[in-house]
Amino acid sequence: MNTHNFYAGPAILPKQVFKKAADAVLNFNGLGLSILEISHRSKDFKEVMEKSHSLVKELLNINDDYEVLFLTGGASSQFYMTCMNILNNGDTAAYVNTGTWSKKAIAEAKHFGNIEVVASSEDKGFTYIPKLDQDYSKYKFAHITTNNTIFGTQYAEIPNINTQLVADMSSDIFSRRLDVNKFDVIYAGAQKNLGPAGVTLVIVKKDILGKVEREIPTMLDYQTHISKGSAFNTPPVFPIYTSMLSLEWLKENGGVEGAEKRNNEKAELLYNTIDNSSLFFAPVLGDDRSKMNVVFKLHDDSHTEAFLASANANNCIGITGHRSVGGFRASIYNAMELDSVKVLAETIKSFDANQG
Amino acid sequence: MNTHNFYAGPAILPKQVFKKAADAVLNFNGLGLSILEISHRSKDFKEVMEKSHSLVKELLNINDDYEVLFLTGGASSQFYMTCMNILNNGDTAAYVNTGTWSKKAIAEAKHFGNIEVVASSEDKGFTYIPKLDQDYSKYKFAHITTNNTIFGTQYAEIPNINTQLVADMSSDIFSRRLDVNKFDVIYAGAQKNLGPAGVTLVIVKKDILGKVEREIPTMLDYQTHISKGSAFNTPPVFPIYTSMLSLEWLKENGGVEGAEKRNNEKAELLYNTIDNSSLFFAPVLGDDRSKMNVVFKLHDDSHTEAFLASANANNCIGITGHRSVGGFRASIYNAMELDSVKVLAETIKSFDANQG
Repeated sequence: MNTHNFYAGPAILPKQVFKKAADAVLNFNGLGLSILEISHRSKDFKEVMEKSHSLVKELLNINDDYEVLFLTGGASSQFYMTCMNILNNGDTAAYVNTGTWSKKAIAEAKHFGNIEVVASSEDKGFTYIPKLDQDYSKYKFAHITTNNTIFGTQYAEIPNINTQLVADMSSDIFSRRLDVNKFDVIYAGAQKNLGPAGVTLVIVKKDILGKVEREIPTMLDYQTHISKGSAFNTPPVFPIYTSMLSLEWLKENGGVEGAEKRNNEKAELLYNTIDNSSLFFAPVLGDDRSKMNVVFKLHDDSHTEAFLASANANNCIGITGHRSVGGFRASIYNAMELDSVKVLAETIKSFDANQG
Repeated sequence: MNTHNFYAGPAILPKQVFKKAADAVLNFNGLGLSILEISHRSKDFKEVMEKSHSLVKELLNINDDYEVLFLTGGASSQFYMTCMNILNNGDTAAYVNTGTWSKKAIAEAKHFGNIEVVASSEDKGFTYIPKLDQDYSKYKFAHITTNNTIFGTQYAEIPNINTQLVADMSSDIFSRRLDVNKFDVIYAGAQKNLGPAGVTLVIVKKDILGKVEREIPTMLDYQTHISKGSAFNTPPVFPIYTSMLSLEWLKENGGVEGAEKRNNEKAELLYNTIDNSSLFFAPVLGDDRSKMNVVFKLHDDSHTEAFLASANANNCIGITGHRSVGGFRASIYNAMELDSVKVLAETIKSFDANQG
């Protein structure tokens, strides 16, 4: 029986990606060699690197003002690396605090410059996206987290910001159409919508680099990786290969426009089911609701174990909410099929009918 | 027909590792889920993390004064991270220059303290290992590269150094018995003797940490990763799982003592074949010869293409020497079977007989 995996990440990838990735571990490109024993300087792997980079550019319609990088260390490493590369000592940056991951980004940025939290949703438990309608021109850059995995909020529209814009897009990149030209740096851990854990995507506008005074270790300088096409040192070969397979799947399935349509349909089904129930509610309202991570709760917590048992009986796993929020969370990234979301929606509906 | 892959890295892994890794991409631990979609907080993956760490401790006989970490960013990231964590501004460290990778380590260390090159083999094209018999007590630490992948040299014995000792062991860790107590930090990219590219092993003596004055970004502080068992952020799940499989294979095959015996036999066969030929020679002599990367050359370069064609005809691949050295290089890490080395030795012998 099919398992419906709603974990927040590392998350599901398309079935054809698992199949092709497993094949390549045994025999990559018909070479009689595993993808795991392939030189990163070999012709075959260079093609993988080129294709991974060009598919990102194609799918997000990125022009030549930007470079695409595949790095390691997760979004957690980008929290400080972005600042190292573009925030001079003495500069001030504007951060928006929309929860756990924003807070972590703020903490690391403080090592490199003055950080002002210009907006926050902490007053209401991070259940909404604050409005960003001030004048930000005095700041070197503004930083946002476009989707908040833990609290289940997401910017419905990317705000117009009158300074450089840096975004942690770990949990919603490739999930919808995006005007990359609004941004100066976008970073994203792969393990939600792109690939397996172990690789981090960075999209950076070239002309903002090379302007800080501090010395930057070679491996932490974006310009190092730009000059070597993400292969200055040995790159994470298998995570990049699998990301390429996942990008190919996305292209074959309507690109980000196709993903956006499917993601809207999945989220609408789930939120409608919750809104129409008597036992459950979604703490995030309206346009601020994440289409990637649907957070929902019981009015009466005493039903929690029984609902988890129902979900489990229907092979829906990974729906326990984050410990800092409680309740439930269904992560429905690009690779999650509508049929799996239907199973969860039916589980909610029938639990509500029986217990409500 | 079997391909004999002598590439310097990413390198071959045992066949059973490829098989088990491919199986896990389709169905990990019989859960009906791919290893690529497993939460890093799940019970099954926590067991992988614990086993990976404990196998390193067991195989290298590491006591509780040390911590084992699985990080990302390669040895190239450890070049600066080690210094960030243990070299105070104003401290001086002693570096041994045995070639390309040592030079890169030296360049990054200079961002964090005073660096003195206390020994070098550059005068003879890095074809030997310099003697380390001075008094190093005035240095915060000394840094060595135990095996030099490009030039094919290796410390036959780890020298006794009267200060802290830091070692880049990327290309010979797990290849022979090792007294970890001689070291304060050991680091190694996985992609030679441990696992696939995308994970980096660090072994660090706990009591040397927490003593520098500089602020360290959270992700670059060894203490962060120690406190979270290498899972402060999402770790590179698949590279760690595959490394665990490879460590299991090593344990089943006599541990590092068994590997050492096999590696000695493989290296001896290859060096003897080269020494007994009339056309070929090995530029590194005696005890300084690497048992991992066998560098050899032709007295007359005009035979190069013909020899590469012979090797290719016998399915021996990846023996072109590094561009900075020329000639040939056969990398014969732990997973390289004696039978493959025999094929290469026979290729050398018969080429020598026919052309010599």
